[in-house]
Amino acid sequence: MKSQRISGYPEWLPEEELVQQQIIDTIRTNFELHGYTPIRTRAMEPMDVLLSKGETDKEIFAVHRHGADVPETAELGLHYDLTVPFARYVSERRGQLVFPFRRYQIQPAWRGERPQLGRFREFIQADADVVTEGELDLRFDAEMISLLASTLDRLPVPTVRLQLNNRKLLQGFYLGLGIESVVETLRWLDKLPKLGEDKTLEGLVSSGASEEQARKCLTLSQIRASSIDELSAVDELGVRHPLLEQGLSELREVMARSLESANSTEIVAALHIARGFDYYTGTVVEGVFADEPELPSICAGGRYDELASSDNVRLPGVGVSIGISRMLGLLAHQGTLQATRRCPAQAFVIVHAEDKRERSEELAKVLRQRGIATLVSDKANAYGKQIKHAIRLGIRYVWFPETSSKPAEVRDLDSSHQETASPQSWSPETNSES
Amino acid sequence: MKSQRISGYPEWLPEEELVQQQIIDTIRTNFELHGYTPIRTRAMEPMDVLLSKGETDKEIFAVHRHGADVPETAELGLHYDLTVPFARYVSERRGQLVFPFRRYQIQPAWRGERPQLGRFREFIQADADVVTEGELDLRFDAEMISLLASTLDRLPVPTVRLQLNNRKLLQGFYLGLGIESVVETLRWLDKLPKLGEDKTLEGLVSSGASEEQARKCLTLSQIRASSIDELSAVDELGVRHPLLEQGLSELREVMARSLESANSTEIVAALHIARGFDYYTGTVVEGVFADEPELPSICAGGRYDELASSDNVRLPGVGVSIGISRMLGLLAHQGTLQATRRCPAQAFVIVHAEDKRERSEELAKVLRQRGIATLVSDKANAYGKQIKHAIRLGIRYVWFPETSSKPAEVRDLDSSHQETASPQSWSPETNSES
Repeated sequence: MKSQRISGYPEWLPEEELVQQQIIDTIRTNFELHGYTPIRTRAMEPMDVLLSKGETDKEIFAVHRHGADVPETAELGLHYDLTVPFARYVSERRGQLVFPFRRYQIQPAWRGERPQLGRFREFIQADADVVTEGELDLRFDAEMISLLASTLDRLPVPTVRLQLNNRKLLQGFYLGLGIESVVETLRWLDKLPKLGEDKTLEGLVSSGASEEQARKCLTLSQIRASSIDELSAVDELGVRHPLLEQGLSELREVMARSLESANSTEIVAALHIARGFDYYTGTVVEGVFADEPELPSICAGGRYDELASSDNVRLPGVGVSIGISRMLGLLAHQGTLQATRRCPAQAFVIVHAEDKRERSEELAKVLRQRGIATLVSDKANAYGKQIKHAIRLGIRYVWFPETSSKPAEVRDLDSSHQETASPQSWSPETNSES
Repeated sequence: MKSQRISGYPEWLPEEELVQQQIIDTIRTNFELHGYTPIRTRAMEPMDVLLSKGETDKEIFAVHRHGADVPETAELGLHYDLTVPFARYVSERRGQLVFPFRRYQIQPAWRGERPQLGRFREFIQADADVVTEGELDLRFDAEMISLLASTLDRLPVPTVRLQLNNRKLLQGFYLGLGIESVVETLRWLDKLPKLGEDKTLEGLVSSGASEEQARKCLTLSQIRASSIDELSAVDELGVRHPLLEQGLSELREVMARSLESANSTEIVAALHIARGFDYYTGTVVEGVFADEPELPSICAGGRYDELASSDNVRLPGVGVSIGISRMLGLLAHQGTLQATRRCPAQAFVIVHAEDKRERSEELAKVLRQRGIATLVSDKANAYGKQIKHAIRLGIRYVWFPETSSKPAEVRDLDSSHQETASPQSWSPETNSES
């Protein structure tokens, strides 16, 4: 079979995948500890659903049956996030769910973007959301930020800075300034870090703002606050609007509550954060590596009051998403993707001779019954070669089954210490789980 | 948002997904215990790769960028199994892998088939395979059957019957009979359970076999053996061919080795098994629920000597695949999908009053730090209502945080027993893991 690598579709080596799996397991454990339940949605959504939620058309992958005369399933496309499918799932099963409904979902999503650093066309995300019927207290926004922070605390990645903002604050500010094209203004300012000041100003003016309005918007976007007090900088800009007041008050409360439970993950307000998706209506969050904030964000989320709602039912939600593939891509780029084990086995069993293989298999069986992942040597060649094979796989413990003259022994390849041991009672040191 | 259910794309309710997750975790644990390492491949493969491996064209989903003028990615399609992508993965990374390479992979796959009982268009499979450079001993075929059997032993599903056969045996038998269209003969006989005897005979004759040859093929297909001795029925048919002898000898050895380690999963030889995919070259296996063998198979696999190989490198492999979605679909159809918990939380913490919420959060934090999944009540309403909420979620233990007059207490909703307890030392009964 010929090589068929395709740009933008990451596939990791076994040692890297073990790191990815560890990250996924850690995220999942923390989500479940907080009572979030797993669900899974299909990869495909109706194209009209995908197209109506503010993604640019060209980024969507359409799916159709190969060679079908009429493109029978041409109305389907691959989802580009997990929030839109989740909202549909909740909306469809409203009568069968218990609200508030907390769920997590770890699945791939697809976007036809130009591949670049940390940005893939197929990528795995871990999302946690809570949706309810009627009203969803602001407390839940803070719960999501805290959940995100405590999850990031546990991951083997550099410290993350969570940058909070609020859509109402931004929209209220623009309205208070007298700007009419609120959505367009939001989009221009969302691109500020990429475009720089000059191009953003130009863009704002081209969308109808006066030079002065545009400059005020820019000043707002440049506000950073690592405490509630520092948020008074917004008031000092002298713009007034009820929506601005509400947004600012929400941001204050969410930030105050999140800071209470914060550990190593940093939590700040950063008023340039807007998030690209149209569906956000209040709290928004975006996380970057604190030491390299210019790298792409590795997690994000926000409040969406209307996404799952329909004419007669209100289903507001708030959620966060961790970009697992992006995280891995950035770690690989930094050279900090620590990958040593190529195999989940903790123990490797030597085969003394091919006709003694059964003895090794039996020893392995005992270890496995005790929950210790074990591999039996595939070749009964020289001990040195068998041990070398264990080393190549990154397995730390090598077992020598008993012979007529010697009891079973285990060697710790880290310390080169070898001793008599019983497979019924021996345990590996627990620096790594299987 | 309107309902957008699409036939053939299963999405489970939270209580069902928890069962699916338990099945996936059990499979994964057993694969890792045996030293199989996780990998993940992208969802898309080049169309020419997908089309060349013996799947009917119409079942493949092609993928292209929405609205792209030229269908830039029209050469891509969604994979219909995990074996073809795995073979490509190995072939591409040959220099970076340690052989024999044992991997497992749990991912969705897609086929544009007509949806029916247990047959979905999007379905999750759990595959385990071993591939090596050069020669892959028959011992590995037996290892895969044993791994499959020990995995099925652990699953909360009815007893499975693994039906073994060997492609060489079938092909050698046809050749020994003087039949020339071996591949076509194989395909007709693979459909025997669906078509019945008469139509299969007709098909065989239409593909060039004489009536007598066709009947002998049918007789072979009807042989069942639950012990090695019973396989002598093949010899008794009086057909001779070197490939037949080799296939029969392989089947005997794989069956003998697999029977040694067998537990509750049944292992038999069933000579109608051929498997649809062209890439199988030796051992083939298909598993059905022993009590309902007429239901679709829930696992399958086999040996493929050429799939990953190229002109100058031989990479033979053997693997098995468990159809997780199909299993769930059949359990749901039988009404035996046991689903009680709607949430992974083991403990539910009462909130005495909204201004005492923090006390409940702190209790939850202690439990979570000890690895106990915990949910805090979202409403500080009457105790009875809060307890009812815990019951609806299927959470067994309800905590009452301490008050000025009473220490903390925990109630077991199964026994209605309530007692004073400390969150620092209490543990739930371990009939279910989080």
